[in-house]
Parts: sequence; structure tokens; C-alpha cells
Amino acid sequence: MIKVGIVGGTGYTGIELMRLLASHPQANLEVITSRSLAGTAVDELFPNLRSLVDLNFSEPSVNAYGDCDLVFFATPNTTAMAQAAELLDNGIRLIDLAADFRIKHVPTWEQWYGATHACPELVEEAVYGLPELNREAIRGARLVANPGCYPTAVILALIPLLKNGMVDPGSIIADCKSGTSGAGRNANVGTSFCEVTESVKAYAVPGHRHLPEIREVLQGLDSDVELVFTPHLMPIIRGIHATVYADARGAADQVQNLYEELYRDEPFVDVMPAGSHPETRSVRGANMCRIAIHYLPAANKYVILSVEDNLVKGAAGQAVQNMNLMFGLDETSGLKAPGMMP
Amino acid sequence: MIKVGIVGGTGYTGIELMRLLASHPQANLEVITSRSLAGTAVDELFPNLRSLVDLNFSEPSVNAYGDCDLVFFATPNTTAMAQAAELLDNGIRLIDLAADFRIKHVPTWEQWYGATHACPELVEEAVYGLPELNREAIRGARLVANPGCYPTAVILALIPLLKNGMVDPGSIIADCKSGTSGAGRNANVGTSFCEVTESVKAYAVPGHRHLPEIREVLQGLDSDVELVFTPHLMPIIRGIHATVYADARGAADQVQNLYEELYRDEPFVDVMPAGSHPETRSVRGANMCRIAIHYLPAANKYVILSVEDNLVKGAAGQAVQNMNLMFGLDETSGLKAPGMMP
Amino acid sequence: MIKVGIVGGTGYTGIELMRLLASHPQANLEVITSRSLAGTAVDELFPNLRSLVDLNFSEPSVNAYGDCDLVFFATPNTTAMAQAAELLDNGIRLIDLAADFRIKHVPTWEQWYGATHACPELVEEAVYGLPELNREAIRGARLVANPGCYPTAVILALIPLLKNGMVDPGSIIADCKSGTSGAGRNANVGTSFCEVTESVKAYAVPGHRHLPEIREVLQGLDSDVELVFTPHLMPIIRGIHATVYADARGAADQVQNLYEELYRDEPFVDVMPAGSHPETRSVRGANMCRIAIHYLPAANKYVILSVEDNLVKGAAGQAVQNMNLMFGLDETSGLKAPGMMP
Amino acid sequence: MIKVGIVGGTGYTGIELMRLLASHPQANLEVITSRSLAGTAVDELFPNLRSLVDLNFSEPSVNAYGDCDLVFFATPNTTAMAQAAELLDNGIRLIDLAADFRIKHVPTWEQWYGATHACPELVEEAVYGLPELNREAIRGARLVANPGCYPTAVILALIPLLKNGMVDPGSIIADCKSGTSGAGRNANVGTSFCEVTESVKAYAVPGHRHLPEIREVLQGLDSDVELVFTPHLMPIIRGIHATVYADARGAADQVQNLYEELYRDEPFVDVMPAGSHPETRSVRGANMCRIAIHYLPAANKYVILSVEDNLVKGAAGQAVQNMNLMFGLDETSGLKAPGMMP
Repeated sequence: MIKVGIVGGTGYTGIELMRLLASHPQANLEVITSRSLAGTAVDELFPNLRSLVDLNFSEPSVNAYGDCDLVFFATPNTTAMAQAAELLDNGIRLIDLAADFRIKHVPTWEQWYGATHACPELVEEAVYGLPELNREAIRGARLVANPGCYPTAVILALIPLLKNGMVDPGSIIADCKSGTSGAGRNANVGTSFCEVTESVKAYAVPGHRHLPEIREVLQGLDSDVELVFTPHLMPIIRGIHATVYADARGAADQVQNLYEELYRDEPFVDVMPAGSHPETRSVRGANMCRIAIHYLPAANKYVILSVEDNLVKGAAGQAVQNMNLMFGLDETSGLKAPGMMP
Repeated sequence: MIKVGIVGGTGYTGIELMRLLASHPQANLEVITSRSLAGTAVDELFPNLRSLVDLNFSEPSVNAYGDCDLVFFATPNTTAMAQAAELLDNGIRLIDLAADFRIKHVPTWEQWYGATHACPELVEEAVYGLPELNREAIRGARLVANPGCYPTAVILALIPLLKNGMVDPGSIIADCKSGTSGAGRNANVGTSFCEVTESVKAYAVPGHRHLPEIREVLQGLDSDVELVFTPHLMPIIRGIHATVYADARGAADQVQNLYEELYRDEPFVDVMPAGSHPETRSVRGANMCRIAIHYLPAANKYVILSVEDNLVKGAAGQAVQNMNLMFGLDETSGLKAPGMMP
Repeated sequence: MIKVGIVGGTGYTGIELMRLLASHPQANLEVITSRSLAGTAVDELFPNLRSLVDLNFSEPSVNAYGDCDLVFFATPNTTAMAQAAELLDNGIRLIDLAADFRIKHVPTWEQWYGATHACPELVEEAVYGLPELNREAIRGARLVANPGCYPTAVILALIPLLKNGMVDPGSIIADCKSGTSGAGRNANVGTSFCEVTESVKAYAVPGHRHLPEIREVLQGLDSDVELVFTPHLMPIIRGIHATVYADARGAADQVQNLYEELYRDEPFVDVMPAGSHPETRSVRGANMCRIAIHYLPAANKYVILSVEDNLVKGAAGQAVQNMNLMFGLDETSGLKAPGMMP
Repeated sequence: MIKVGIVGGTGYTGIELMRLLASHPQANLEVITSRSLAGTAVDELFPNLRSLVDLNFSEPSVNAYGDCDLVFFATPNTTAMAQAAELLDNGIRLIDLAADFRIKHVPTWEQWYGATHACPELVEEAVYGLPELNREAIRGARLVANPGCYPTAVILALIPLLKNGMVDPGSIIADCKSGTSGAGRNANVGTSFCEVTESVKAYAVPGHRHLPEIREVLQGLDSDVELVFTPHLMPIIRGIHATVYADARGAADQVQNLYEELYRDEPFVDVMPAGSHPETRSVRGANMCRIAIHYLPAANKYVILSVEDNLVKGAAGQAVQNMNLMFGLDETSGLKAPGMMP
């Protein structure tokens, strides 16, 4: 039984980690911290966990995690980088669900996140926790940077095409639609019910922090990648729908086979039959990225449809998947539940 | 490993049964029937089950269930009563998620359901599958009538008060709010997105089929019970919120203790701390009825708030709970997952 | 052309006033104030008003309203009472959409609102702005207390029964369901999209500020009135559905006629045909309260269904209706647009 | 006062026409037909129109419209083409809100709509009713083809760029998100509440009927236009958000001015300030297309954000705008109401 801790358990990735860990047969949640709510029972804040999580939030400190094999950081950006070194020195492995270790090129990170990085040497050590790209490295990692929600959906949509040189790498457009939980559990007029429901809008068109993350990872597959990334806010709680466009190069007739082959053994990527249109609800609550590939001959473009639950495969579920890999467990342990439909 | 079948797997209770059974460690889904979709792969209709349910819908017939220990009827009313005797004769036990066996008084059933009952003798044998009332009888039953969604929430709200004679039995009002999945998976203008969302309405105020069911069960606790039952349609997928009013009799100061005591050992009834207001989302996807009790001195009335997921504790989850009891399994087997919040 | 001002135009009643006034043929919005946003263009905050409202928010002060015939207070509670006397002294009439002048019994107000009232003498002068009760008094009023959203729906549901002594006045229960805009335009985790959508909950069961308001008005019709009032939060933007229960006294066969007669000449109360179930969406955006009356013989109770848009007949629309009366305009001026369906 | 009729008044464009016409000072609805509901009161189906529309649905026939100056066809495709000639022969002008007369190239129409066109000669005569392109022709037209909802949003987004040769005409991608009312008022599992809400999906990626319509109109501006058009279904009632991408040609620094200039006098196109992100809710219920233009230097692409209410500027509102033009009225008559926010 692995002993795990969560730093910052009052946001949506924190509660989702607890929901998933509550059903995990080989991991036990030992401690969960929150500076603002220390002393409060977890199930007072999150009554869905009544009788399942019998912990109080405790003060964050390195001692708090003394017994843990692993700590998840479900915190705002720049929190994990301040504490990572001390935890690692104490023999505690670490998965950061925020962005502190996602971007290898530190100046780029500092530009987009508006802060000086506290531990560039750990950025170098950190493994980008997308198992479909970095499974072996994750197994041995002390420090995993859990990918962003949008990057997971977009990168998984493009790996087969880029690995096989089948698209113009400068032509990529990722038009992405996200549920509101991606904005976090905050007091904010802009994400209040009456402002979000019954409406759709794009945001951050000139530039979103997930853009440099996606670009860096994709440039690892093809150094010429450039892309447009447009996030949209949807009136749904959970779900990302990435609609990815790219100009085709060469023959397109084997593209369906190619995706099916490449992802055949992936437990959490599901290539739909040709002609499909995946719905985000089919992955609600599930650690799954469901993908369909369309080729449009008149425009000679691919349109890849990629859906995930931003809190699961896009955050907490992928973090548990990474934990499973880091500790030699069955990669699917605790992650087999189907999506909730309806 | 129990072998189970589902009759009529294309509705919301059918798909929810599959979702729950997919994670059940001691039951295996062997067959699922649908007259209209025989031959179609289940996961074509319900892609959330891809890789988890590897079955095609098959033609309904008694032979189809030959190997099954238990068959769930997730069918429209009047279907189960036509097939029950033959299945029971073949040694197959049966849980009906529709209404055919819920009401013991057959003329009442016939009046509300507008049909002649096909097997009144089986109505007598059938056990009303509310474990909190009939646990022992369920264990030995061949035929279980799974309660309606509204009745489950309303009855659980009232058991402690009625058992202890603490309310005027003629004063009960159950004002209930239900998610739209309670109306089933049908092609119907009235339940289309644009007609339901951003609106609230009462329906069936003069009389709803769940009224005689609730009344009969409550009259088993106090023969003087009369009640008003007002269902409302809510723009949510899942969830019932019952707000139950009753005139108090005698001292009210021990009511919180009373509820806590009576439900202390119930795995799927959660009495909230005094003063609470349960939210339906706290039980989304979970087999749980969460209850809070308020006493209003000025009006000398109790207000009991009772929430459940109509598809889980109000239908498929309760059916699995009944199956667990019928086959001597741990009552909570396959039913421990927390609600999905957010 | 009446000249009007709005104090506190950044909340939902403020923007709704602007929406309605933009189509009003006899009133012109001259000034709108907001301490926090002084200098900002109104249509920057509310782009639906681009090209229709060409004003900036200005600093609140009595001088700001110098030219106005009427000022609407769309402010938090306790704001209007601090400024009312000065405005009235300057010859400006006033409609308060908050609660400062709604309750005549000042100690009750002070208890529920947790403040000392700044001008009890104006409470006495103020007219409770429910035209269906106080039309004549409103015409001559300098100061109108615009009713609360819940009170409007509940009181209109009960006037005919109470005026005619047809119910037990101690038996009333008002089970009310409200859209989230009733909670205002605030930064608040509890009203954020992910916490509200796909869920239903009761709140303030032990006591809500609209309870004493409803009680006082109803006691004006029958001094023995006592009631239970249970508000619920719904995942809709606009709409209140009041489901009102009361024990019948005497014969019930004329109740439909009674409602139709009493409200025959009311432009903004619509009595539906017998047996109806009004939907909140039928009044979305419209200044209308739509009512249906049911009598249940078995329980000898009335169930009255009453729907309104909480921002229109429950707030800004009723305020415009009051303005029309105060200034001798056609009562329906600017208020004839139908509800938006779908 | 113009006398108008509506054919097929039971769908969402029909009811929206009635909502708009109810507030129109110069048009009077004389007749509304529906084969299936002949004899039923309009306000029984649509209670928001109680007291505002005092008509019964009548049998469709040319005599039914005898007094009308104009008839709107709010019918399924292929209905208007069967009746158009006879109405025109009787001196009645006609606006078709369906697709029968939108595509000039009849073989293309026949291919996409799967029918033989009944009156190709009227296709030639018909004017495509986008006032921003064809205002003068509309004024004199007997027969107007009201544009599709998606085409309106996409074409208005692109006119300035294409007219000025500022984009590669072969590079256009229109990623569009639509509210569910665009699918019509039908009994359909796929558009039921529980299947649509809390989910997002693309549909018709290989080809949607609005693609040839958009292409033909845009090719009128630049004959080399080719485009990808991807519609997505959103869990909102009303609203289209078109996110349009195109490769820039030449200098981009004047693009904001260009849009502002070109649309300066358009009453129903609103160019937002540079850097804006329009929300669909800002045009809910309003006859307005709100547009923002972004230029992304790294990718050298334009991203144009274009929002409308699919039932208003995308259907019934534009039809009324066309009616105003055809009959020499103020183009904005009956169309000045602001969007409903929140």
C-alpha cells in the first residue's frame, strides 16, 4: 500500500484526486493539507466523501508528509517549485499537477508565468508525465510534471501524424472547448453560474499559457511545429473537446490504421471507428482520451476530434496513472471505472 | 461470480446497471437484450462502455437468459409481469426496476397503470426492495420489486418519524424535484434540451403513479397516512431532492438523534449534521440517500430534506444492492464509489 | 419623458432595469452610478447594451441625480435608507429594489437585517410596491418599496384564497425554487457554475429574510397567517417557481373562477386554465406572474403554482410597473414584450 | 400596417417570428398555419404568447393567406418550393427561412438536400437575404432566401477580409459552435436534455449542408475560396459562436479599422474593440452579430470571433429585417431590443 499526501486539497484537482484514490486498491491517502482550512474535516467541504475520507485538512509543512511515499501538488502555480527540493531530499517523490515543471525551457516558463523559477535544476530532472510519450522515464522518476488539460487532449490528437511526418507542422490549429472546472474552484464573477451558463466564448486568443507547453512537446516530435491554440469556455462542468486541424502531407488513406496501431496497447487512449464524433460526456469521470480522425479531401486537411475529462485524463486521473507507473503498479489500478452517461 | 442478465438495456436504468456492474467484483453481465437493437454492439450505443462491455444486444427470450442466476428488468411497465413466471420457473431470480410488482393492492395498481395485472399471485410473493425496510425478506426473495425513484427518497425521509409516531400522518406533503433522466431515454419534445433547460415546472399535480406506491408503503408504518405528492421537473440529468413537510406531534428535541440512531448501520443512508442542506450533486453517481432534518417551532412542522441520484439509489444502484442481499454478498459490493463532485 | 437614474448599476437588477428602460417609450435613463466603476462605460461591462446605453458609470452623490424625476436603488440592503431622505428633500421620487422599506414593523426588519434602521419615519411613508394590492397608493407615492422576488410570487398566489377566507391561515407552506440570479452578481464559490449546475438544494430552511416580508403582507389579508417558506436554489438563471400549499376551508368548486375574476383586469397576472402546470421559461424576460390552481380532494388541500422571472416581475419589471403608476403612464408601458421561449 | 402570415408555426423559427412580430409596430400577424395542429390555439402550445397572439393554427392553403402582403415559411426544407409559385402569382411576397432558395447552383442544392428542385427559375429570382451583402436587391425582391444560421455568422466574419484580398482564400477554417435550438423543435433522442447537457461534440465533420451555402456566397467575394466548416453542438438553447481562421496576406495593422469602417453603418453588426472576446449571451434574443478580430503574428493568421443568436440574426430576426427592407420600413423596426443578460 502506497502512502500518499495531497498538498492543497480544496480545489477541483484535489477533490478529484480524493475521489479517485478512495477507490484505489493500492494507495492510501494519509494526509491532505490546506493552509486556509487546517483543522476542518475534508467531508465538511466535500460531502460526497462522507464516510470515505476520514481526514482533516492539516497545515502544510514538510513534516506533515513524513510517512508519505508520494505527494501530489494540487496547488496554484509556483507553489510546488518552492517545496519540491525539500520533499525530494526527504525521499518523497512528487507529482505536480500545476505548471511549475512542465516547460523545459526556463526562460519561456518565466515569461508566461511571470515569475522567476525557484529550481531550474529540478525542471531538468522532472519528467513530463504523459505516459503515451514518456512511459519509461516516468517509471523511474522522482518528480513528474503532470501535463495541462488542454495539452493532453491536443498532444494525443497529434502524436501519430507528427511521428509519421504526415502534416505540415506549421499549419496546426487547435480549437479547444473546455468545461468550467478547468478554471478552478474560485470566487470569481466571470465563472459564476449566471455568467457562464447559456453562453459560449473564446478567451485568451492572443496567447494562453498552455500554448508554449503544447508547442514545446510537439516540437520534440517535429521541431518545425507552430500552432494556433484557441481556448473556449463551455457551460459544462467537465470535459475538453479539442478540434485539431492540420494540412495533410502525402497519402491519407492509412491514417485510421495508423492511429489504431499506435494506440492499440494504450489503456487510456481510445481510437473511435472511422467517421465517429466523440462526445465529452462519454469520458465524464473516466481516465480516457477518445479520438476520431477525419480527412477532408477538398481542403486536404485532417480534422482530429479529441475528448477527455479535464479533471481526470487532463489532471487527477493522469496523475494517478503516473503514480501507478512510478510505483510499479498496474497502470490501470484505480482507473477502470467507465464514464458516467448520462 | 453471479451471472446476470438485463432485459431492455437501451434506457437509462439499463445503461446505469451496466456502468455499476462493470465495476462489480462478484457479478458478471452475461446477456443484455433489446428487441429493437438486437445484433448491435452495446458500446456503439453507449461509447462510455467501450472496452468494458463486450456484448451485443440480443433478442429477448427466456432462452437468452439460460445461464443467468438473476435477470434485471430495465423495461417499461407491464413488460416484466408478462415474463416473470417463466423465468422464475426456470430457476432465474428477478429484480424488476419498473412498477409491475411495487403495489400490493392489485386494483390500485390496475387503476394507476391502466392495465390488468398478468400475475397477481407474483405480486403477493414479490418483496418491495427497500433494504432499509425489508432487508431480511429481500435476502430470501426470488422476485424483488425495485422501488420507484421518488418513493425511495420520500420513504427514507419519513421512516423514523412515522415509526415513532412523531407526526400527524394526515399532514404529509412531499414536494419533490427530479432530474430529467427520470423521464427515461425517449424521443419526446417535452424532454428535449431546449424545452427543459433554464426552466422549472411542476407536473402531474392531480396525481402521479408514485403517489399510491408511497402511500401504500407509508401506510405500512402508520395506517392513517395521507399525503400530497408534487413532482417537479428540473434541468439536471441526475438527482432527486425531496422536501418533505409534516406537522409535529410531541417533543421534537430528539429528532436528530433519532435519525442518526435508526440509520447508524445503514451503508446507504447518510444523516447529515443538524442544520444541513444536502445538495443532489453530493450523491451524483453514488448509491446514497443523504438526509437532513429541520424542525420549525413557529409552524410546529418538520422539514426533511432528502437527496439521491434517481438512477442509482433511486434505481440501478438499489437494484444492485438488492442483488447483493439476494445472493449473500457484501451489501456494498460494487457500490462504494463516491459521488462525483464537481 | 421621465428622467430616471439608477443607483448601483452593476448588479443583475441594475442591468435588467437598463434592458427594460432601453425599450421604454416614456422614460429616459439619465444617470447610473457605481462607486467602484465610476468612469467606466456601461457597455464595457454589459456589451448587450452597446449602442443602446451611451453612459458611463458616475460617482454616486445627490448631485448626480439633480435632473431626475425618479431614482431606482438597485443596491445592497441598507444603502437606500441612508440616502432616501436627501433625495426626497430634493424632490426626487424613489423606488428601492432592495429591502430597506419593505417591512413596516421596524424591529422585525432590524432583527432580520442585522442593522438599525436609518429612517423609520420613511418606512411608514413607503408604499409596498405590489400593484395588485396597492395600486392606488403607489400612484401617489414618493417612496416605493419594491417587493422581494419570492414574496411577489407567493403573495400573488395567495391573495384570492386569503381575501375570501378559503384556507386555514396557519397551514400555508411555500416551497419555492429560484434561479441563481436571485443571489446577485457576486464573486462567490457557492454560486459558481461548477457548484450550482447539475444540482438542486434547499437553503435557509430555518429562516430566510423574505419570510417576515411575506408574513407581514399576508397578515394584512388575514391576521392569523403563519407559514413555512423553503427556498431552493435551481440551476437556471432566471425564474421562480412557487409551489404553495394550504388546507382548504369550505367548498372548493369555485376557486378557478375566483382567481380568474380577481385577476381579470390585471395586466401582469395570468391565471392559467384549470389543470395547468406553468413553466418558468414561459415568463423568461417578461413582466408576468403566471398562476395555476389545483385542489386535491383526498388531502383537502390547494396547491397553487406561481411562476415569474425573478428579475422582471420579481424585481426590475415590477419597479418599472411602479414607475408607470407613479407618473401616470400606461401601466404596461415598456413592459409588453413576451417571454423568451425557447 | 403590413399583413403577414407564417407557414409552419410550431417550430423554433416560427415561435421566434411570433415573439418578434408581437412587438413590431408596423406588421400584424394575420394567419399562422400548421397541418398537424389546425384548430389549436397558438398560446396553448406557446404560453409565453398568452394575451399577445390571439390566433388558432389554421390549415395551410393558398387561400389561408389571401389578405397577406408577405408570408414567412418557417417550415422544413422542400416545403416552400412547392408553394412559392402559387403565392407569388397571388401577389404575396415570400421569405423562406429554410434552405430551398439559398443556393443558386441548383445541382449543388439537389446533391446536398437529396431532392429535385421544384422551381429552379425561382431560385434564380430569389435574393439571398443577407442585408449586409444584398440590401438593395432585397428591397425590390418578391422572394427572399433567408440565410442559414451558420452562414450568417461565418460570412459576416469574413466579408471585410475577402473584399480586401487580405487572406489566402484556400486557407479558411470555420470552427462553429451552435446552441441546440438550431436542431429544431423535434422529438429526438439525440437532442434530449440528458444527451445534450454537460457535453460537447462535433457533428457532420465530413460535410454539413451549410458548407455549400457558405462556399457559394464567399466565392461571390473571391472565387478561389475553399473552406473547412466544422459544426459543434453546445448545451445552450440559443447562440452561435463562429471561430474563423485564415492565413493573412499582406500587412495586418489596419484590419481593426477596416472592419469598423465597413460595418460602421450596419445596424446589426457590431465590431468590438480590438482584443475583445464576444460572448453569445450578449446577443441572446437580439438581432445582432458581434465580431472581434485577432491577428496572431507568430502563425500569421487571423482569428475572427463572430457571435449571434441563431434564432434571431441567424433566422427570425434577419427575416424581419428583410421584411422591413422589402416594405420600405425602418430597417430596425421591431428589432431594437437588447440582448438578455444575464
